[in-house]
Amino acid sequence: MNSPQADCPLCHQDGGLLLFSNALFRVVEVDDADYPGFTRVILHAHRAEMTDLDAASRDALMQAVWAVERVQRDVLSPDKINVAALGNMVPHLHWHVIPRRHGDRHFPDAIWAPARVPKGAEPAGWPARHARLAEHLPRYRHALVTALEAL
Amino acid sequence: MNSPQADCPLCHQDGGLLLFSNALFRVVEVDDADYPGFTRVILHAHRAEMTDLDAASRDALMQAVWAVERVQRDVLSPDKINVAALGNMVPHLHWHVIPRRHGDRHFPDAIWAPARVPKGAEPAGWPARHARLAEHLPRYRHALVTALEAL
Repeated sequence: MNSPQADCPLCHQDGGLLLFSNALFRVVEVDDADYPGFTRVILHAHRAEMTDLDAASRDALMQAVWAVERVQRDVLSPDKINVAALGNMVPHLHWHVIPRRHGDRHFPDAIWAPARVPKGAEPAGWPARHARLAEHLPRYRHALVTALEAL
Repeated sequence: MNSPQADCPLCHQDGGLLLFSNALFRVVEVDDADYPGFTRVILHAHRAEMTDLDAASRDALMQAVWAVERVQRDVLSPDKINVAALGNMVPHLHWHVIPRRHGDRHFPDAIWAPARVPKGAEPAGWPARHARLAEHLPRYRHALVTALEAL
């Protein structure tokens, strides 16, 4: 299962805006207007589970996840970070690192739950808040690359 | 935030059937009839994020998560493992380690999504399948404690 799989999107596409890549993994920003800074750490090889990896690769992947979390906290100041490796639909290891905020579309539920703030029912301050968050993204990307390069 | 918090359930309760505990964390089996073997690794201290921990504690916690994943795979033979630290409702570090199966109530969605198999609409083989899974739980618990003691 190490070689590219014909039907696996993460074997053939970056899976988002590519921010960083090394021999083992890449880090991409997810295109999700509701979650500015939503980032994934994606193993290059097609493996399904963390326990498919050797200990060194597993640890290296997690160091990247913690680096993402730390930079999200430092630059984006979320209320909570959500970290998850699910892979039920795409069984190719990828870690979701999601900055969460009180009042975001799903808070305090997981982003996979039904939205508490449905599309079209956003409160008045929503666009301005999202614009403020989006302003931080260039600095977030720069700080993230710097942190990942230093690992 | 290291001392017990008055309003935090994980500061005052095990949070499930206690299988293992050491100085840093405990491991509990979650009472969820839909997900036999659903297990949580819970930090004893009240900390919200993995990057609140020192590197040694973070790594020790993840070694426990991988041990749970490995024993779930060895004994319960799931189709996929889901691993997540969310904590939006209870911001006290706890890792969900969830054995998933094709045809379980939410597959291939996250267990926090709406159920694809609603209560009362289970297929005919559902009770027998769950009974077979439940039969493995004593062996799962024993193997898990053995693996955690060996860390």
